[in-house]
Amino acid sequence: MATGFGFSVTAVDGQARCGNIITPRGTIRTPAFMPVGTAATVKAMLPGSVAATGADILLGNTYHLMLRPTAERIAALGGLHRFMNWDRPILTDSGGFQVMSLAGLRKLTEEGVTFKSHIDGSSHHLSPERSMEIQSLLGSDIVMCFDECPALPATEDEVARATRLSMRWAQRSRDAFGDRPGHALFGIMQGGVTPDLRAESAAALTAIGFDGYAVGGLAVGEGQQAMFGVLDYAAGLLPADKPRYLMGVGKPDDIVGAVQRGIDMMDCVLPSRSGRTGQGWTPRGQVNLRNARHQSDPRPLDEACTCPCCTGYSRAYLHHVLRAKEIIASMLLTWHNLHYYQTLMQGLRDAIAARALTGFVDQFHALRAAGDIPAV
Amino acid sequence: MATGFGFSVTAVDGQARCGNIITPRGTIRTPAFMPVGTAATVKAMLPGSVAATGADILLGNTYHLMLRPTAERIAALGGLHRFMNWDRPILTDSGGFQVMSLAGLRKLTEEGVTFKSHIDGSSHHLSPERSMEIQSLLGSDIVMCFDECPALPATEDEVARATRLSMRWAQRSRDAFGDRPGHALFGIMQGGVTPDLRAESAAALTAIGFDGYAVGGLAVGEGQQAMFGVLDYAAGLLPADKPRYLMGVGKPDDIVGAVQRGIDMMDCVLPSRSGRTGQGWTPRGQVNLRNARHQSDPRPLDEACTCPCCTGYSRAYLHHVLRAKEIIASMLLTWHNLHYYQTLMQGLRDAIAARALTGFVDQFHALRAAGDIPAV
Repeated sequence: MATGFGFSVTAVDGQARCGNIITPRGTIRTPAFMPVGTAATVKAMLPGSVAATGADILLGNTYHLMLRPTAERIAALGGLHRFMNWDRPILTDSGGFQVMSLAGLRKLTEEGVTFKSHIDGSSHHLSPERSMEIQSLLGSDIVMCFDECPALPATEDEVARATRLSMRWAQRSRDAFGDRPGHALFGIMQGGVTPDLRAESAAALTAIGFDGYAVGGLAVGEGQQAMFGVLDYAAGLLPADKPRYLMGVGKPDDIVGAVQRGIDMMDCVLPSRSGRTGQGWTPRGQVNLRNARHQSDPRPLDEACTCPCCTGYSRAYLHHVLRAKEIIASMLLTWHNLHYYQTLMQGLRDAIAARALTGFVDQFHALRAAGDIPAV
Repeated sequence: MATGFGFSVTAVDGQARCGNIITPRGTIRTPAFMPVGTAATVKAMLPGSVAATGADILLGNTYHLMLRPTAERIAALGGLHRFMNWDRPILTDSGGFQVMSLAGLRKLTEEGVTFKSHIDGSSHHLSPERSMEIQSLLGSDIVMCFDECPALPATEDEVARATRLSMRWAQRSRDAFGDRPGHALFGIMQGGVTPDLRAESAAALTAIGFDGYAVGGLAVGEGQQAMFGVLDYAAGLLPADKPRYLMGVGKPDDIVGAVQRGIDMMDCVLPSRSGRTGQGWTPRGQVNLRNARHQSDPRPLDEACTCPCCTGYSRAYLHHVLRAKEIIASMLLTWHNLHYYQTLMQGLRDAIAARALTGFVDQFHALRAAGDIPAV
């Protein structure tokens, strides 16, 4: 474990656990949900508002930041924390996933990947060594290994090839990362939905040794059942004394199921992105505030919610500002959704600490099954 | 003067004066700048943030709100203050100006104006009586008479016709408004750039009697020199014991010049609109943050400014989020610009109270002439 970086499990309930990740920039309560701040901003939110929702850490995207404004420029300006005015921990991904999903023309070799920017078509290169350099320039607190996540659908042979390449890149990432006190390096397990490949990947990563372990290659369109199928055994393949991070997840019920299966950290654009399209998340499920049924509804999105959106505004107002394409619609709904996600995480942590997770999860599903409040 | 509504001048310096407008919803310090909340939101701002900039009052647009979500719906939801979560005073315009500037196919008669919505082409009607009804449904604290502001360029005959129609509509507005304790009705002087018409308009309005008087028909493309030319005598035509409101003004130097000429209230979309296009206003003038010279600049937009944009972010960050089309760019620059405007108003009020307006205005112009800080 890196100096100044630690993880302690404070309670266990079934496979689920709660605890704390200690970093020089603050403690991350787990299970933790990390809002995504792609281009050095959690879209439509000021950093103080993100912190007010209860977020202990956020995620930055290496791919976006290396292209614009560039890692070198952010370093010259004092690092990503100072640049975006966020002093709590930041986790950065390696850039590999978004090269595959966003960049134009790619060329993958053993050494790394060359690609064209989706912004201006300019040529760029990423490798384990360059990804470590960029994440260091950004000043990331939790650095992710550079890996290859194969695009779906993929044959088992293709998944096996990508998994083994990712393991060699994990060793190169470890070597390039070196010794950076207070900064952690996480390995990323691959292997698709094939148990033997998952086990092989976990064994290789564990042999190298990391400060935490991510489950990669999920939430890429395989569906919740297949994802839970992998999570049923994946956590057990990883060291119990290190944080486990499920990348890119997810909807509230994905999060609850992942926590039940031993996951400690997650990230997803869903609460912010769906807020910008008029979707509000509540304990009773997803509410489309663009729907005409909300046009004259004086009630808040969620009566029990304490966020600024729910304490200050009616559904009718949210409907109006969405229809009028006003920026405040994105601001209020993003804030609400992030608040809801963090409230859910606090509920999960409290339930695990009280060894009452089963009852919490039953109630979570029961309320969602009941659906939104009836129209006025 | 309406019951519960009052105006007191506390200091005079030349033609300029400072004072307080008292309303049941709070005191408005004058000279006052009113941010514009067109569609029940000051774009890209939460109401608490608008208040934090020092705004005592904001403006709502009758034309926009009557079309969407409709005045009747807002009334059913408890009025505009509750709808948009702003408990300080609100002034609403009459709708007349925006019918002329935004609506499709219009038909103007002595009775009123019929027009098509710019949103969906539906037919609507406004008259003095309907405008008073709508502004009452909204719960506006300061209601504006329904008038006709002729589109420029206009002949003197056309301006005279519109001015006299507006005076007949002012009487009908006064009759329809009735007695509404705590709510004020302002007349609107017209007359273009013709002194005799301005005097005729002022005399007619004063004879009817209003709680305040607006100078209309300016800031419609006539230029600063022509506007100041009217303001040089317009304030003197209006009662000294009532607030004078210059509609739709303006740039910082327009505001300073108007205050020097006896204006007490102004409104303009400029600080919010220009924030959304990357323009920042400082004591040294207008700064285009999209310009490449700011790309690596670690300094805030304005070193002396205490707003969240300037205390938390570099010009390089603002440049980045503008280029990346991030919502936070609009949020930060709108906040800064509104903060700058309110700081300017406080400076004007303090200078008038100290009978030191001339020195303040000299320094204002000197700093602007010096221009933005040199590039790094």
